[in-house]
Parts: sequence; structure tokens; C-alpha cells
Amino acid sequence: MAGTLFTVGLGPGDPELMTLKAARIVGSAPVIAFFAKRGRNGHARSIVEGRTRADAEELRLEYPFTTEVALEDPRYAADIGTFYEACAAQVAARLDAGQDVALLCEGDPFFYGSSMYLFDRLHGAYRSEVVPGVSGMSGCWTQARTPITHGDDVLTVLPGTLDEDTLAARLSGCDAAVIMKVGRNLPKIHAALTRAGLAQRAIYVERGTMPGERILKLADWDGAAAPYFSIVLVPGRQRAR
Amino acid sequence: MAGTLFTVGLGPGDPELMTLKAARIVGSAPVIAFFAKRGRNGHARSIVEGRTRADAEELRLEYPFTTEVALEDPRYAADIGTFYEACAAQVAARLDAGQDVALLCEGDPFFYGSSMYLFDRLHGAYRSEVVPGVSGMSGCWTQARTPITHGDDVLTVLPGTLDEDTLAARLSGCDAAVIMKVGRNLPKIHAALTRAGLAQRAIYVERGTMPGERILKLADWDGAAAPYFSIVLVPGRQRAR
Repeated sequence: MAGTLFTVGLGPGDPELMTLKAARIVGSAPVIAFFAKRGRNGHARSIVEGRTRADAEELRLEYPFTTEVALEDPRYAADIGTFYEACAAQVAARLDAGQDVALLCEGDPFFYGSSMYLFDRLHGAYRSEVVPGVSGMSGCWTQARTPITHGDDVLTVLPGTLDEDTLAARLSGCDAAVIMKVGRNLPKIHAALTRAGLAQRAIYVERGTMPGERILKLADWDGAAAPYFSIVLVPGRQRAR
Repeated sequence: MAGTLFTVGLGPGDPELMTLKAARIVGSAPVIAFFAKRGRNGHARSIVEGRTRADAEELRLEYPFTTEVALEDPRYAADIGTFYEACAAQVAARLDAGQDVALLCEGDPFFYGSSMYLFDRLHGAYRSEVVPGVSGMSGCWTQARTPITHGDDVLTVLPGTLDEDTLAARLSGCDAAVIMKVGRNLPKIHAALTRAGLAQRAIYVERGTMPGERILKLADWDGAAAPYFSIVLVPGRQRAR
């Protein structure tokens, strides 16, 4: 009988913020699959360090890019599609052999997670289960000690990869906002927040819940490059009650 | 020395979706505080059943309302403020006596959580720590097996308590949307989604991750009353990759 694909959300980075269910599955799966960038250890893999079976196979799925390629670049769509097909075949081979596979995912799998592209390809043919996780943004607003939404606040979540005009338009009139995928987009995000009148309220969080965490008002940002694990928060209206 | 206030997110309902950190704190705190509606057991309390210390004090914080009172009703703001003041005083008494208090919270505390109103009142005077949780919406889109956002989708989270015109305007042109606090607002939400052209894509989830869970296309909704624990999801563009 074929194995089951478990797509496992691991939370924002602190290993203690994984769920009991994630810990149980990670601790019993014979195959641990995870994405990693070339030359990197793989962040999801580092979260489960010391929690996997000693005899578990580690299936490393290495992205074909060494640097960020723009989402709108046609090469990206073609290459990444080929990559996900190859990954799905590797995972399917283990499932066909009757092994359960735990596919690791930072944060929450169905919220901007790469693991969705394998789930989409495999869940029709194999038993599959998805385990939700604490999102990166929840980890960040918690560490910033900043409630993000109260009462009837509307929250808008924006990828920082959008162009500046789109960001500024979407941010205008926002109650609360979260900007994901910050990295090299931070100067553009800062400009869009300034145009929307929100730069003074914004908070920048780098490596939230992880070693090296840094939290500051965006207004105090010194213009230094932001790492991949960074996020910008605009808290809601904070009405007293 | 005064105790520490732990505001503990418990996730969407399935006890196995609490984090390792939440389980550790709930299992060791001498005081377990939780909100409950009059005549109800308290949902947060039910999630931690069997996981607290046998000698833990249970501090039940009972809402002064038996039915939903509209957010815009001035009586609501006055009465709820008095209620939260009284709750904060009860929690503070335990902290002053040197006891740690675990304040339970469904979902993620800083995301529309009532526990924020106690955190706001107490965190300046006492050591406090907040534990993020898997949000109710993550639990729901996972159970619906529906990735909510891909690539550069924008996600808008809307409380169903907003008026129909505001809902329809905010939903227009959305990539992905989540509508929280559904309950008796469902007919209005359905009308707003129809005006925004999104009703056909919408999914209705009742008691996600909990016993009695029900998931259906909103188009198949029969007009029956929705319970408090219900949510509407509009998945993003689901671009193939």
C-alpha cells in the first residue's frame, strides 16, 4: 500500500512553536523531505533538528537558483515548474514504496508555502494530510508585542514583490497591513508606505522568533539590506476598550 | 516576586494543533484563566482538557452578555470595558500573590483575540509573555484542502460585522479573502460576495478542525443559521506552476 504525504507546517522558526501534531509526524516519518537553497542548510530542516527518527531518510529538494529570480521573469515560471515536477517524482517514488513522507514547510503550508506546489501535484493520487502551522506573520507581531487587529479592523496581507504603485494603492486606507517577502524590496516598500501615510506606524521585524531577531520602527531603519526572513507590520487602530 | 502573565494561543480547536510551548505553559501554570459565555463551558478551556495541573486554579472570566450585542452599540463599549477592568483586577491579584497565570486564547492571541484587552491593561505592570497560535483561518483553509494564497496574491481579512457596502467594496478586486466572525452575518456576507462577483469561488467552513466540522461551497449553503465558529474563504488565483 502506498504511503501518505504529510505536508507539515513548522511555524515561524522557534522549534517550540511547532504544533504537537507536527512534532508527532516529524518524529515518526521514515522520509523527511524539505526545500533548501543551493549552499544553504534549509531553514525548515534546521527547525526539526534532533526531532526526527535516527534512521529517517533526508530528501533534500534543492532549488535550481542561487539568487532571487523575479517572479515575472518567464524563465522563473518555466524552470520552477520543471523543478517542482522533479521534486514530485522523487516524493512519489517513496510513497509508491509504501513509505510515509513528511514534507517540511516553514510557517503555514497553505499560506504562500512552496509545499503547495507538491501537494497540488500529488494529493489526487496519494493519501495526503496537511498540518497547519503558526504563520511567520503571527510569530513576528507576537515578538513585536503588537496586537495586529482589534474589533472590526480589516487586515491586508501584501507580498513585497508587488510594484510600488500597486503597494501604495492597496495600502491606502488600510486599517492593518502585513508586508511579506521583504528582502531586497524594502526600499520600495518604504516608499509605498510613505505615500500611503503609514510609514510612521510601521514596524520592521527581522528573523522573528529566531536567533538574531531584530525589531525596530521602520522610521528607524538605516537603509541596510534586509534578509529574506523579514516582514513589515502596520498595526490596526488599537482602539481602547 | 510577582508572577508572569502568559497569554497562550491554543490554535483553531483540535487540541493537537496547540504548540509545544503552549502545552508546556498550560501544563505547569498554577492558574488557568479563560473567557466563557454565560451558560457555556468556554471553548478555550475545552481545548486544554486533561492537560492542566490537577491542582491548578481555574479562573473563569464570564462575559456579561448572553446574546451578541452589536459592536457599534454604545452600551457594548461601556459594559465590555468595565468587564475587562474587572477581569484584569482578578488576574492581577494572582500575579501579585506570586502566581503565574496562563490566560487561554483560541487561535492566535494578537489576531482579533479578546485576551489582548487584558494584555493591554497588564503588560506594563507585570512580566508577560505571549505565545502565538495557529489561527482559526489557517485551520479552516487546511481542512478545506484549499491553499489560500500563491505567489503574489494579496489576502484581505474582513470581519463579517462590517456593513454590506463596506464588505462589497473591500471584496471587489480581491485576490484572496477570509471573512471572520460570520455567525448571524452570513446572509449579508453572501450578498456582498455576490455583488463582488466572488460568491461562486467562496467556501463556507463551520467548526473547522473540531468535532462537527462542516465544509461546503457557499453556493450550496441552504440558508440555515451559521454558528459562531464559522468562516468564509475565497481562495486566491491558484496559478499553476
